[in-house]
Amino acid sequence: MISRYFKRKIHKLGTYKTYSVKEVIEKQINPDQIITVYGWIRSLRKMKNVTFALINDGTTGKTMQAVLRSDQGKGLSTGSSVKLTGLYTTTQNGFKEKQEYELHVNDLQICGYADPSSYPLQKKHHDVKYLREKAHLRLRTESMCRLLRLRSFLISIISTFFSNKDYIQTHPPILTSSDCEGSGKIFEVKSSNESNNFFKKNIYLTVSTQLHLEALSHSLSKVWSLSPIFRAEKSRTSKHLAEFYMLEAEISFINDIEDLMSILEQMIHDLVKNLMNSPIGNEILSENHKINKKDRIDIENRWNFFLKDHWTRMTYAEAIDALKNSSVHFKFPPKYGHDLQAEHEKWLAENYTHTPLFVINYPKQLKPFYMRLNNDSLKHPDHDTVSCFDLLLPQIGELAGGSLREERIDILKQSIVTHKKHLSDLSWYIDLRRWGTTKHGGFGLGFDRFLAYLAGIKNIKDTVAFPRWYQHCNF
Amino acid sequence: MISRYFKRKIHKLGTYKTYSVKEVIEKQINPDQIITVYGWIRSLRKMKNVTFALINDGTTGKTMQAVLRSDQGKGLSTGSSVKLTGLYTTTQNGFKEKQEYELHVNDLQICGYADPSSYPLQKKHHDVKYLREKAHLRLRTESMCRLLRLRSFLISIISTFFSNKDYIQTHPPILTSSDCEGSGKIFEVKSSNESNNFFKKNIYLTVSTQLHLEALSHSLSKVWSLSPIFRAEKSRTSKHLAEFYMLEAEISFINDIEDLMSILEQMIHDLVKNLMNSPIGNEILSENHKINKKDRIDIENRWNFFLKDHWTRMTYAEAIDALKNSSVHFKFPPKYGHDLQAEHEKWLAENYTHTPLFVINYPKQLKPFYMRLNNDSLKHPDHDTVSCFDLLLPQIGELAGGSLREERIDILKQSIVTHKKHLSDLSWYIDLRRWGTTKHGGFGLGFDRFLAYLAGIKNIKDTVAFPRWYQHCNF
Repeated sequence: MISRYFKRKIHKLGTYKTYSVKEVIEKQINPDQIITVYGWIRSLRKMKNVTFALINDGTTGKTMQAVLRSDQGKGLSTGSSVKLTGLYTTTQNGFKEKQEYELHVNDLQICGYADPSSYPLQKKHHDVKYLREKAHLRLRTESMCRLLRLRSFLISIISTFFSNKDYIQTHPPILTSSDCEGSGKIFEVKSSNESNNFFKKNIYLTVSTQLHLEALSHSLSKVWSLSPIFRAEKSRTSKHLAEFYMLEAEISFINDIEDLMSILEQMIHDLVKNLMNSPIGNEILSENHKINKKDRIDIENRWNFFLKDHWTRMTYAEAIDALKNSSVHFKFPPKYGHDLQAEHEKWLAENYTHTPLFVINYPKQLKPFYMRLNNDSLKHPDHDTVSCFDLLLPQIGELAGGSLREERIDILKQSIVTHKKHLSDLSWYIDLRRWGTTKHGGFGLGFDRFLAYLAGIKNIKDTVAFPRWYQHCNF
Repeated sequence: MISRYFKRKIHKLGTYKTYSVKEVIEKQINPDQIITVYGWIRSLRKMKNVTFALINDGTTGKTMQAVLRSDQGKGLSTGSSVKLTGLYTTTQNGFKEKQEYELHVNDLQICGYADPSSYPLQKKHHDVKYLREKAHLRLRTESMCRLLRLRSFLISIISTFFSNKDYIQTHPPILTSSDCEGSGKIFEVKSSNESNNFFKKNIYLTVSTQLHLEALSHSLSKVWSLSPIFRAEKSRTSKHLAEFYMLEAEISFINDIEDLMSILEQMIHDLVKNLMNSPIGNEILSENHKINKKDRIDIENRWNFFLKDHWTRMTYAEAIDALKNSSVHFKFPPKYGHDLQAEHEKWLAENYTHTPLFVINYPKQLKPFYMRLNNDSLKHPDHDTVSCFDLLLPQIGELAGGSLREERIDILKQSIVTHKKHLSDLSWYIDLRRWGTTKHGGFGLGFDRFLAYLAGIKNIKDTVAFPRWYQHCNF
């Protein structure tokens, strides 16, 4: 299978340049050279005289076909890691329709054997719950590899987007003495082996970096962060985690939530367009992995839906009217002054409009203390509204939310008191308004939830490497 | 000062395109157009007929000169935020040597006034301790703005470096049940208002993402993370924080720590080269801000030091010999089998070599359980060594550390027991070696410490927006 010349050459030179599977396949290295490739065996097809192995190393979704002598193939198993050296050349038989080139292996070394009698990941399909219990090995599944590459890709696109617009990426603190959302569903932090406190007061894990980002935006104008966030919600739904990543941006010198919605819309547009033209985008939509046609079309529809121009804006009041005028029987009847329920959000996003939907200007009592009171509140004399938005999508409801932040110090103080928070706890935050403040605002987007939506994954627990939720924090 | 034609035009059209100070100065927009710029007043020079204001909005270290009529300048103060509209045109007088163009302001609006009688940041130099107590306002100082921009720049360069080499950026968990380093100096996490536990067992904040990165590298080959890390050290030194960012990389299919050191060396090379050719690099070395010549030369020397080729490698044993053979009187006499003290590390980095210094192969009892036992341990029959390195630098000592990780399951288990850790707590970590393992390794670099070193900042507390350390977690 390999010419005597090359065999001699291999034995003579000993070591060859090592390539990743991505370099071999996607970057298309020149064929007819002797190379070394490391990777894991994804599948094996043992014939009489020859064994075909598909090799992957996680750098790409594609696999490289390796052709082994049957004696080399004998002791192999899927999941084993191997070092392969051989001639990378034109495919001679088998799988030819899929790949133009293959590796004719001269030298094979098993780095780590995976005994098929005990290895928990067998070729057959595993239940998602089974895999969640084995998160450390689940990482090795094709599906999780793909999600991890997608995550890395999204981070890099978002970074480039913000960088091109002169936003500064920041690292706001995780440990904090402020409970931004005021929900009380927070984790407390203590030094593990101390009788006295490490810090002087009670310290919590951040539930949102927003308040600190506001301080940063009062210095750098436009800032963003992609930071872990913690919420102690006893939820077991498919949408919630106790630890997740939040993408947040905060912008000074803006006058209207329209500026915020426009940036968010641009960001998602840019991201989805890049995704569609990327190897990872192709991989998600590829027929090569186990995804049924309906699910694939659903994913494509989601991406195209994001690319629509002029996303719809409607006020909360209009949304309530639309819900009331619909003939749908909701479990919770829509009522002005009450929260939009998930059933309302989904109906609005799915039926009322054919683009992603911004619902703006909610009544102030439904929203946190920091949102800016609208000056147009006379329109609803009984129900003052704040200048905010929620971004709603079909199937999942809320994806992101944002608002102008109250920069008028007296109104802010009043709002803090109304929300039963202590002025003294927020004195530093109030200080931001005391000197050199400006109209400003920002938004937050649940990064893991967004990733799940883009990849068509139904449960957020299956998009995160090591998910943490109520009663679950193994590893 | 502004032509009647433009005045008419301003009144007629009302709004003009808004630019950031960076766009105006660095990207050099065309002069002789009417523009709007928002920003904070950095300094004011009030003359009889005219007021000069230097405007900055945090997007760049440079300021834009605005020329105001004396009546406009009357109510202004440094630190106030303003909206300025006017003609951007050739500088006519004053500061001409510094800037070719200036903004002749027609319309000025104060967004947020900073009352000089109360604003804590006055023009004069403030003590670092005073500023640390006011971290939310300290962000507005030129020095902190510069560090925040430097941080953002470094993140983006590192991302590009790893992305070009097919590393996948990952988000390992912050909440964990494993104490990676085994120091016991960890923070414990509890739900704040629950009598029963949110999680089933004791949960901590991660002290290193390494163990989880190893699981990820067993799937994706080459991974990295830039993640917050927490250590409950009761330290008040200039080098330690309770919360800081760690840059960590983990690589499968490598055979030698040389591969790791080479990647780290390349990364820092690439980063420093990019820094030197960047606006933020020029800004740090610029004579425009209050940095004395000695400090500036020191920073330049640090950068050039990193750019040296062929960083020195020496073994721990050689390091001990070098220390012993020196004529220096150390507080802690160097002794084989004992930790290198800060005084030893600094001496080695400063005197023994003229490049950054890798000290490799420490005795195993000085290092954590996961490091790979060297096969060459016969050279030191009494003291087995592990395949690891510390990267030492003049002035600060250790900057980064890395190692091969023990992939041989029996040796790993033995090491876990020797280090008085429970096999059951680490069963998932041992599992990684059970099936399809490979030789692998990685390194970690204290990101904030690195940033401080590059910028010549003496105390790490002055490089982080909201630093947390023993007894300090305000805001």
